Amino acid sequence: MSASTPDSPLLPDFVTVIPAGGVGSRLWPLSQPHRPKFLLDLLGTGATLIQDTVSRVQPLSQRVIVVTGERHADAVAAQVDVPRENLVTEPTPRDSMAAIALAAAVIERRWGARVMGSFAADHIIPDAGAFRATVVEAARAAEDGKVVVIGIEPTEPSTGFGYIEMGESLAGDARHVVAFTEKPDAETAAAMLERGGFAWNAGMFVVRTDVLLGHLDRLQPALAAGAREIAAAWDGPDRAAVVARVWPTLTRIAIDHAIAEPVAAEGGVAVVPASFEWHDVGDFDSLAELSGAGAAAVSIARDGAVAMVGARGAVVVGGTKPVVVVGVDDAVVVESDEAILVTVRSAAQRVKDAAGALETA
Amino acid sequence: MSASTPDSPLLPDFVTVIPAGGVGSRLWPLSQPHRPKFLLDLLGTGATLIQDTVSRVQPLSQRVIVVTGERHADAVAAQVDVPRENLVTEPTPRDSMAAIALAAAVIERRWGARVMGSFAADHIIPDAGAFRATVVEAARAAEDGKVVVIGIEPTEPSTGFGYIEMGESLAGDARHVVAFTEKPDAETAAAMLERGGFAWNAGMFVVRTDVLLGHLDRLQPALAAGAREIAAAWDGPDRAAVVARVWPTLTRIAIDHAIAEPVAAEGGVAVVPASFEWHDVGDFDSLAELSGAGAAAVSIARDGAVAMVGARGAVVVGGTKPVVVVGVDDAVVVESDEAILVTVRSAAQRVKDAAGALETA
Repeated sequence: MSASTPDSPLLPDFVTVIPAGGVGSRLWPLSQPHRPKFLLDLLGTGATLIQDTVSRVQPLSQRVIVVTGERHADAVAAQVDVPRENLVTEPTPRDSMAAIALAAAVIERRWGARVMGSFAADHIIPDAGAFRATVVEAARAAEDGKVVVIGIEPTEPSTGFGYIEMGESLAGDARHVVAFTEKPDAETAAAMLERGGFAWNAGMFVVRTDVLLGHLDRLQPALAAGAREIAAAWDGPDRAAVVARVWPTLTRIAIDHAIAEPVAAEGGVAVVPASFEWHDVGDFDSLAELSGAGAAAVSIARDGAVAMVGARGAVVVGGTKPVVVVGVDDAVVVESDEAILVTVRSAAQRVKDAAGALETA
Repeated sequence: MSASTPDSPLLPDFVTVIPAGGVGSRLWPLSQPHRPKFLLDLLGTGATLIQDTVSRVQPLSQRVIVVTGERHADAVAAQVDVPRENLVTEPTPRDSMAAIALAAAVIERRWGARVMGSFAADHIIPDAGAFRATVVEAARAAEDGKVVVIGIEPTEPSTGFGYIEMGESLAGDARHVVAFTEKPDAETAAAMLERGGFAWNAGMFVVRTDVLLGHLDRLQPALAAGAREIAAAWDGPDRAAVVARVWPTLTRIAIDHAIAEPVAAEGGVAVVPASFEWHDVGDFDSLAELSGAGAAAVSIARDGAVAMVGARGAVVVGGTKPVVVVGVDDAVVVESDEAILVTVRSAAQRVKDAAGALETA
């Protein structure tokens, strides 16, 4: 369990929002619709990803809001030390903008306009102190009315992330955001690293609720009105009725498209560059890499032995039984309570189709 | 459980001996020293290999002797309907000649000289009727004083079996054995099939106990004397003491080398050719082939679903959890209560090293 909120948070009025969504279908059978990635102790550290995330942000702010699906509320409440009333539950997924807008509107209703920071429940950031120092810096820029994103310094020309093109310096460490770039091809990624001035977009942003909702009023007025209407009823007797009526009508759009990109084009987005280690472990190949897998056999989130005969680089995740891999290099063997996955690191992306294949088997 | 011995066996005075030994280390983790291959329901038919074997021979003969390790006696007794006194137990393995010689000597002590047939506990013979008809034919030739082997008509130039070179016809279906050939290389095997007159040596033989022990008296006198000494004490109060003293002194030699080859050279061995389907499933590749594995996924001895993504020919043996194979062709996934094996059909031979690799992992 996470530690309790400290008495003297780094940012007394700051509110942390943790969007806890996304199944992580390439991590099947560990992750499943009823047990998404953020509920997993993916690295076998003894803490789940959402527990790690909450521990990381609690020294920042007295108030932590978790936005998650209704079906996951009990599991989240069992895992983290966040008051039940701070779980903002979605009856169905309606993409990130609806979730964040509702959280922002609930925050404003409860506590007035605040600086909020949104940090996904399933990212891995080993240096929590460096993370918090960056958020403190981002909160300063957000006070000035900017939408502030945290930009991770690229360590390789990854094609797995969007990039932030950084412009002139603003106050403190912040820099102007010229534009957001979608996930690039390898050539473009290499060119960006060569040229410099680009950061990975880790989906972490800090903004005043009134600034966010103000942009939304202009750019997605129906979505803004709907989120505000639900928030107005959230802490009263009509929540269920209003949610049932309004939530299904909210526009399905990602916050990147609804806010970040258009506001950046208007000059309203800043970036705080950061060099802390950050991982969004999406598949078993990246999990293996993060776990230091090489030629030797590696066990992740399990105790059982692993042995190899005529093989190298076996990665075994979960389960308790000893595993022996014979004659297959870079094998990945994953055991959950429900199923066993056998693949190789180079095929890790295709695991997203495993659950579907089983359904039709 | 097997049916009881019928009132009217095909061969009233015949005694069946079932050597039940051999771990089957290439079938790990299904087979293990404490749970050898013959105790497994390898095909998932509901009967273990030794149960199948006993069912196959019970209509032949009133008396069935199982020769097995002391450590497996309880498991054998629990699986098959053979009286406990008909389990001839070996304190330690001393190769096939000691086991068969002891069984023959015990038979002679108890019931006088008899025709006996020896059939391994872990072979698969779907057509039990054809098998029994062949044994009846072999028993006739054995009455005449021959060591009679059953020769399986080759269906392919296998390099996995020894071959029997067949000569002129004797009475009935029997033919003279010219010589036994060790497991050949592929070229030799192909040449033998091309030339004709060769049969696979399936290790099944039928012989009068007095003929067998007589050959042994000449060819391996110390072993013969030791086996007779133990047999003399077997049904009395001194069995344990005599076994403890004499068994460890018995020559370790295979019956092929002790009897079959030298007696064949003397002209004393006959073969009854048979065309029934016969399998000595030694590894997961041959198990997969026997189970009809091809491009589609196959489950053996289990109920769980199997699915594939970007893969073909997955073979899953044992266990209960659904298994999905992603991006690996001809994968073999085996689950026992103790361990999980992941390999591919082409590496099936190397599975024999899996248990050892785990011990040193």
